[in-house]
Parts: sequence; C-alpha cells; structure tokens
Amino acid sequence: MSTPLRVDEVKRHKWWGWGLDDVTFNWRNKPGFQPLAKEKIGLDLFEMEEPTEPLLTDFEVPASRLSAAQREALVAVLGEDNLRDDDEFRVVHSFGRSLPDLFRARHGDFTRIVDAVVYPGTEEDVAAVLRLALEQDLVLIPYGGGSNISGSVTPDAAEQRPTLSLNMGRMREVLEIDDTSGLARVQAGAYGPDLEEQLSALGWTMGHFPDSFTYSTLGGWAATRSTGMQSDKYGDIEQIVRGLRMVHPDGTVVTKAVPGRDSGPSVHEMILGSEGRLGIITEATVQVHRIAPVRQVIAYMYPDWEHGIRGMHAIARSEVKPTFTRLSDGPETRFSLALVKEPTSTKSKVMAKVQDGLFAYLRSRGWDTTEEMCISYVCFEGTKERVERDQAQVKKIVAKNGGITLGAGPGAVYDQKKFDTPYLRDFLLNYQVFGDVCETGGSWSDLNEIHATVYQNYYAARARAGGPGFMFCHMSHTYHGGACLYFTFAFPYTSEETALEEYQDAKNAVQQTFVDLGSPVSHHHAVGIEHRPWITQDIGEVGARMVRGLFADNDPGRNLNPGKIIEP
Amino acid sequence: MSTPLRVDEVKRHKWWGWGLDDVTFNWRNKPGFQPLAKEKIGLDLFEMEEPTEPLLTDFEVPASRLSAAQREALVAVLGEDNLRDDDEFRVVHSFGRSLPDLFRARHGDFTRIVDAVVYPGTEEDVAAVLRLALEQDLVLIPYGGGSNISGSVTPDAAEQRPTLSLNMGRMREVLEIDDTSGLARVQAGAYGPDLEEQLSALGWTMGHFPDSFTYSTLGGWAATRSTGMQSDKYGDIEQIVRGLRMVHPDGTVVTKAVPGRDSGPSVHEMILGSEGRLGIITEATVQVHRIAPVRQVIAYMYPDWEHGIRGMHAIARSEVKPTFTRLSDGPETRFSLALVKEPTSTKSKVMAKVQDGLFAYLRSRGWDTTEEMCISYVCFEGTKERVERDQAQVKKIVAKNGGITLGAGPGAVYDQKKFDTPYLRDFLLNYQVFGDVCETGGSWSDLNEIHATVYQNYYAARARAGGPGFMFCHMSHTYHGGACLYFTFAFPYTSEETALEEYQDAKNAVQQTFVDLGSPVSHHHAVGIEHRPWITQDIGEVGARMVRGLFADNDPGRNLNPGKIIEP
Repeated sequence: MSTPLRVDEVKRHKWWGWGLDDVTFNWRNKPGFQPLAKEKIGLDLFEMEEPTEPLLTDFEVPASRLSAAQREALVAVLGEDNLRDDDEFRVVHSFGRSLPDLFRARHGDFTRIVDAVVYPGTEEDVAAVLRLALEQDLVLIPYGGGSNISGSVTPDAAEQRPTLSLNMGRMREVLEIDDTSGLARVQAGAYGPDLEEQLSALGWTMGHFPDSFTYSTLGGWAATRSTGMQSDKYGDIEQIVRGLRMVHPDGTVVTKAVPGRDSGPSVHEMILGSEGRLGIITEATVQVHRIAPVRQVIAYMYPDWEHGIRGMHAIARSEVKPTFTRLSDGPETRFSLALVKEPTSTKSKVMAKVQDGLFAYLRSRGWDTTEEMCISYVCFEGTKERVERDQAQVKKIVAKNGGITLGAGPGAVYDQKKFDTPYLRDFLLNYQVFGDVCETGGSWSDLNEIHATVYQNYYAARARAGGPGFMFCHMSHTYHGGACLYFTFAFPYTSEETALEEYQDAKNAVQQTFVDLGSPVSHHHAVGIEHRPWITQDIGEVGARMVRGLFADNDPGRNLNPGKIIEP
Repeated sequence: MSTPLRVDEVKRHKWWGWGLDDVTFNWRNKPGFQPLAKEKIGLDLFEMEEPTEPLLTDFEVPASRLSAAQREALVAVLGEDNLRDDDEFRVVHSFGRSLPDLFRARHGDFTRIVDAVVYPGTEEDVAAVLRLALEQDLVLIPYGGGSNISGSVTPDAAEQRPTLSLNMGRMREVLEIDDTSGLARVQAGAYGPDLEEQLSALGWTMGHFPDSFTYSTLGGWAATRSTGMQSDKYGDIEQIVRGLRMVHPDGTVVTKAVPGRDSGPSVHEMILGSEGRLGIITEATVQVHRIAPVRQVIAYMYPDWEHGIRGMHAIARSEVKPTFTRLSDGPETRFSLALVKEPTSTKSKVMAKVQDGLFAYLRSRGWDTTEEMCISYVCFEGTKERVERDQAQVKKIVAKNGGITLGAGPGAVYDQKKFDTPYLRDFLLNYQVFGDVCETGGSWSDLNEIHATVYQNYYAARARAGGPGFMFCHMSHTYHGGACLYFTFAFPYTSEETALEEYQDAKNAVQQTFVDLGSPVSHHHAVGIEHRPWITQDIGEVGARMVRGLFADNDPGRNLNPGKIIEP
C-alpha cells in the first residue's frame, strides 16, 4: 500500500519560469556566450542592466470562481490539505512552460487561471473528483510536472465554468516490479528523478530521459506521447508504457500490460497522447531494464551537416544499436562551444589548448570550424565487450563518412549538462529575447530538405519582421525510416504589446514548413493549444473528424481539458 | 501508374478449404503420424475410407439479394468484369478459414452468404463502391486473402441488407520504394508471396511471414493486426506499417509514414485492427530491409518446457537479437517428429540413425524424449561475423539452461515447411476431426501458469465431453516483457449436429483461460466474431464502450462490416 506525498512535498516550478528559484543560467563563466549572442541577435550582455525577478504581488489575481459549496464538496472528498486555491498555486498550475505561457505568466496575464488545485492521493480520489466535476459541470485539467510547451495545461481564456487543476504529484510510487518480466507498475504522478531513484535503488532503469526530465511525470509523458533522449535503445513512451489505468467518465479503463495484443482498434493508443481529454491517467506499467554494466558517451566531429547525416544514417543501418545518437548542425555546434565554461583548472586549460590545436588542424584540412563543423554524440551501453565492439564499429563508420572521433571527454560533459537548457529560456526572457524550440520527424530521405527549408523560412520570417534571429538544429531519436529534427530559435522582440505576435510569426514559419513537407506537427512535444492550428493539416480532415468524434463521444459535456489537441 | 490484375488472376481458395485444389496433406509418407493420431484422438487412418471432396453442386446456394438496379450501378462503376455473383465466388468470399467457417462451408450452410463480390482496381473505385453502399444501404465486407480464423469476413446470419464482399486482390503492386529510408508504398491487396517477390527482385524484404503468408494480404494484415514468424527482428505489423491510406465514409484518411509522431490519440492505431469497421485500407507504407547476407536457422533441444522457457528468456534478455526464437513444448515436439517423412535417400536414412542414437543418448542422461523433450529453433540474420558471434552466444545460453544444440539441419527443414500447416485442418475435417489453434500473449512471469492452466482446462473440457483430445503448444514472438503462446488442439467430433457446440466448448475452455489470467483474447489472430464473446473481458467495460463509440460515430448506419469485433 502506497502512502501519497503531502502537498508541500510535491515539486513546484517558480511561478514565472522553469524549475527552482535558485537555479539560473550563468553567462559570466562562459566566455563564448556573450559574443555569440551579440553577433547573432544583437544582445550585448555587458551593456544590459541586471534583471530583477518579477513579483507576483505586482499583479492582480482574479478571485476563484469555485462556489463555496463546490469547494466544500471537494474538501469533503480530499481533505482541506489537498485543495489549494491561494494565488501562487493557482498561477503556477495555469501555465505550462511554453514560450507564450512563460511570457504571459511573467507579465501577469491572469485573465483566466484555474480556480483551485486539487491533489488526489488515490485513484478513488481521482474518480470522486471526476464525478464531482461532471455533476457540477466543472472543467478538469490534469497536471503532471507542468513542463509541457504546447499549452496542454492552460485553461481556455473563454472558459466560464469553474476550472480545476488536478495535480497528480502525490501519487508517485513504484508499486511493484516484476523482476522476471522487467515490468514496473508506477503511479502516474512520479517525477522523472524520483521514479529513476526508486528504480535504480533496485538495479533498474526505465531509460526515459526527456529534456523536461526533472519537471515531468510518468502520467504526463504518457498523456503527451513523450520521447526521451535515449529512445534509440529504450523506445518512445509508446513503447515503454505497456499498460495504463485511466479514470474515464464511465469508470476506469485498464489496458493490460501484455506483450502484443490483438483486440481491435487500440484503446491503449487512444489514451496515449490524449492530454486529459479522455480521462485522467493514474498508473502505468512500464518496461524496465537492468542498468547496463558499461555506459559511454563518445563525441565525434563531422566537417558539415551532410557528412554528419550520412554518418548517422550509416550507424542506424548498421548492426550497432546505440542508446542514443545525436548530431548538432553547424550553428548548434557553435552554440554548444559557446556554452563551455572558462577553463580554470590546470586540466581544463590543457584541454582547451588541445581543442584549439585540433580545430587549427581541422581548418588546415579545409574544415570550416566556426560555421559548418558538426558535433555528434553516440551513447553505448551494455557489456564491456559489446560497448568496445560497437565503439570500434562506429569509429569506422564515422571515419568513412568524413568525421573524426574525439573520445569520451566531451561526451561526459554532454551527459551531465543535458537537463540545464530549459533555464536558458528564462534567462533570455529577462532581456526581451525569445528562445524556443520546434521539432518534427522526417524520413531519412527528407531530413536534408526539412533542415534547409526550415532555416530558409525562419530567416525569411525574421527578415520580414525586420529584426535579427538565430536558429540551430540537431538530429536525434533515430528509427528505421528516419529521425527527429529539433530546431531551436531565438530573437529579440520589439515590444511587450507585439511580442506574442512576433513569436507566432516566427513559430508559424517553422511549423507550417513541417506540415507542408509532410512531417507531423510534432515528434514528441504534444499538440495542446500551441500546435492545434496545424493538427488538421497534420492528420487530415478525416483523421481530425475521427479524433473530434472520439472526444465528443467520451466527453460530451466538454469537462475534460476541453479545447486541447483539436477544436470541437 | 499501376495496372490492376484481372479478376481471374487474383488467387482464390478452394471453396471448401485452405488454398489450392491440388495441395493436400499426405500422411502415408509420414510413418509417425498415423500412430500418434491413433493414440491421441483415436483416429486410425488405416481403418478409414478414402475421403471424397465435397461438391458445391450438392448444395443449394441462395439467390443474390442485390437488386438489378444495384448491380447495374456497381457495374457502371467497376465494369462487368469486376463484379462476380456466381455461386462459387459468393461462397468462397463468405467464409474465412476459421474452424466454424470451414465446417459450415463443407456442409453447405449457406443461409447467409455475400450477394456479390466486387473487385476495385483503384482507390477511386473503392471510394465509389463505398459511396454507393452508403446511398443504397448495402453492407460492405473487405476481403484480403480470406485466411482469417476469426470470422472477420463472414456475413452476419441475421443481416437482411444486400451484402458485398470487396476483394482487394487486383490492387497488388509495390508502387514505390524509398531506398534511402527503407520504406515501400504498397497497395493493400498484395498477397504475401507476390509482395515479397516484388521486393526481393530489388533486394528488399518486408520480413512479415505469418502462417497464412501464402493466402493473406498486406491490407488484411493491417486490418487484423497480424504478426509474422520473424517478428522478433522485423516487428509486428503495427511496427512494420508506418503509414496507411483508408477510404472512410467521409473521405480518405492518410496517416503519414513518419518515424514517430505526436499528434494526439493515434488515428493510425485506430485503423490497425479495425477489420473494415472504419473503412477500407487501400495502401500502406511499410518498412523494408535489405536482405541479410547470411541467414541460418539452428535447432536446439531442451529436456522439458521449464528449461526451454528459461533458455528463451535468457536469449531475450541477452545482447543477441535473433530474427525469431521458437520453443515447442513436449507434445508439439512429438507432433513435429511425427510429421517427419520416411527416410528414402541414403542421406536421410543416415540422419535418422543419427537421430535415434542422439535420442538414446539423451534418454541415458535422463531425458524423456517422448513426452517432455522440447525442440527450439532460433533464426540468425546479418553479416557472417554477427551470425557466428550470436550463434556462439546462444549455444552457450542454451547449454547453461540444460539444452543442447542440434545444428542447422532440422532448422532448414522447419524453414521450408512453415506454411504447410493450414492444409492439415482440412485433412482432419475429412475424418470428422477438428484441429484448431488459439494464441495469446503473456508476460515472462505468467507464461508457465498460462501454459499449465490452458492444458488443464482444455483436457477438463474434453473429459466433460467424454471424448479424447490432443493439445500442444509453442512459444514464439518474444518481447521485452513476455511472449506469445500458441496452442493447437484436436479432437474428433461426435456428430454433424453437435459438432460446432463441441468445438465451442473446447475453444471456450482455452479462450476463457486467457482472459481469466489477464491475457488478451488474441495475440495476432484478430477478433472478428470468433473472439467477440471475450472482447469486453479483454479490454474492459470502458474500453469496450470507447471502441463501440468509435464505430458508432464513424459508421452510424452500420454499413461497414457490422458486428465484427464488438456488438453494437
């Protein structure tokens, strides 16, 4: 029997940004950052005033629309401790971590925020809250780690009915591990680090490490079809999650954690990615793996993107099955190098010299080490014998495709820093700069065209807007047929009034390119409201009609996170 | 541009059984078969009269319910050549190859058969037929190879509306191969051998080889969530089929052939397994692979099932990734050995001697080579180096789990005979014996319990019925979390009148055990009408409600293969 956490034990973002209050991006110890920001987007950090944090008390928070009777009924179910309707809780739960969400939160755009936050401790609690929501015609928005960047937890501005955020964070336990089958039954509210800690204490890992890892939950991953960095080995969440429990208006749906099933259209795959529109996921049975005896991340360099993609493709087609493969394009490689800390120790100073020497040598061989050179990381896991064999084979493949092997040093750095990027967006927002990401999947034969066209259309949009912009990209998550392209872009907005329009203009250029080239609206960032404008172009008129029908049939009263994924 | 086949070029089963007229099971050259049949189910073939084939002219075939105007309208769309309503065509298309279907066909139970068979040549044809069906309130049953054993193409006896079988066999072309991405666009009506022939001519394989391979189509595989023998390497059809085109009442649904998508609940996974209830699949984009340079099937023996399962599990957990792994239990091993042809050549006589010597040696080591010993096959594909390395590793794993390696000889025999089994059911029916199969998926920790309980409940059912029965089983299709168990059973029925009841009684004992133990109603044999009685126990009340809602929403008039998968 599991004991749910207390509400104050459940992690919470700072209300205006990503993660914890005391963690921020530090540019001063990264000498390459300021010059690059100045060159690419005209941001001269030496000239800027030190930013101050926004204060919630500067803004007006509207009163909760929950009636006293409704509040009382919820308290009767959950207990007073498990309902929070103070300003900070309501604000935090009304925004994911999309760019528009962050911008609106910082600027106190609280026109429509959730009216209360409820914290169920059991599946019965969830069912009772859902029943109450249906009886009282309340809106229910499930909340995991609040890290989505697609507006999946954001209430609709036009929603008049009282709206609850249902925070699953108290239900965070690994309930059972089937050692023989490598399957673990886990409550939906478990955050990434907590989940992996519980598993690794027993020698297991689930292997799901999205960028949002520190601030996202198992239920959230399932509800948004998340993909972790190590999907090449461990699979997307669709492969990892074998069975689900979801509280639905008509009862609890259970999809069996069986290897292969042939039971008609997949109910399991209707629930995955449903973002709370069919019910509340309370539990998942997931594949777990014994922690590999040896793990190594090796770094490689290619002279340019085309060579790199050929190398990645050749690795994907080989008999080597890495845990992940990642290729940064020229601009992203430059950006990564600009994030390297100033060498202070003797060892790091020596390493910096070695790097300078290597780059000089590569330039002498005709490489453009500033704009074109691409860094790549490949992660190997397994027995020592296998890791060594696979590394040797990848080294050959990389060389055959014009690249060189750097070794394990930079790989280890990558492996440690991988969850830090989200803090950078908050940092840039302090200086009126938008930084955001868009990603999609493409077949091997389409990757280069998508890559080139997205760049072209983004820079065209920025040129029309008359301001600077910077974009970079990496390829990761390889499959038999293709891979994911992950674009990051940044630009300074011109005024608070026009900021979100400027943002939409840039984002539109990228997203529209995806669907125009036959790629999906997202590879692993869900739909929510941010990607909703393209969903019909993505899944087609008839597909959209099928999904709309599914939601209308299961939630005719539109009480379950209405408006997400597709308009009614 | 593809040229569709002519109707007479489309493969057709004999009307009363599996496959071609001139292929039958020959027991006389298999000296082990008659004694086993006599021992297990009391069938003494030496005592039986030579059976005669049923004649269609012995039975009455009801007139087509299609009105002259409806027929004319269909002919106007498709041309006279592409509509067939003669008796044999109507009968063949009214039955899959389930045991009840075969029994009813042989005995001329033609109470309700399809009223005409239409053969579209293009997706436009399919759309036009569907429009006409909706206008005229006709029922439309898509037909691939007609090999399903779940009643998926069988019209409902109570259906009063004119019913069309829509045979996709003319549309059988590989339209395009994307060499870079390893993706092929293929029309849905392509039969297994035709498809693989078109692919292999260009150096590719799809790697999907279900038992039904010779008489099943790509569209049928997708519509029934088929799994091929080599799924360990190539995946179930859900993994192989990346994109689909389906003609739906509101237009054509296209699911993009992209690697990974995050576009809400998966429309793609609603279509897979939908058995024509949402529309007609016309095309699929599938993963294809370069034909492996080296392929080898190696046979192993274990002293008993428990050792075998431990060995299979250890292989699945190792770094070896075979193309398939298969373990026959004691009874199935005995059955397999009983199918070995009488040695006639010097070489086969020597081999038989060697086998006798080996078995004697194993008995001296305490093995029960008649009842308990289990044969296992593992298929290796890849470079010579990899195949050798993996074979060496599997040999070690097998030895560690108490088994021995037999070598490539028996494996090659298995590889050649794998598509012959369906003919055996027709042979047995000639002698009033039912032979059929049931399969499910179970986690590694549940496999032994499922195995034991199914045996127990099947033999208890046969004991209640007061007649003999035989059952055997193999494990194949391994996954991280478990595998498929595939049971075969046989028994003589007592009279034509009670035969189907006797059959249901035996089958119920097996299927009910599956769902009682938390396993799905089927691992890869679809639902149709044969597994429909257990679908709610399988996917639960709420899951059933979701699927029912999906069908009702997309096909409110119940024109699309009504009654399959779930009752309205």
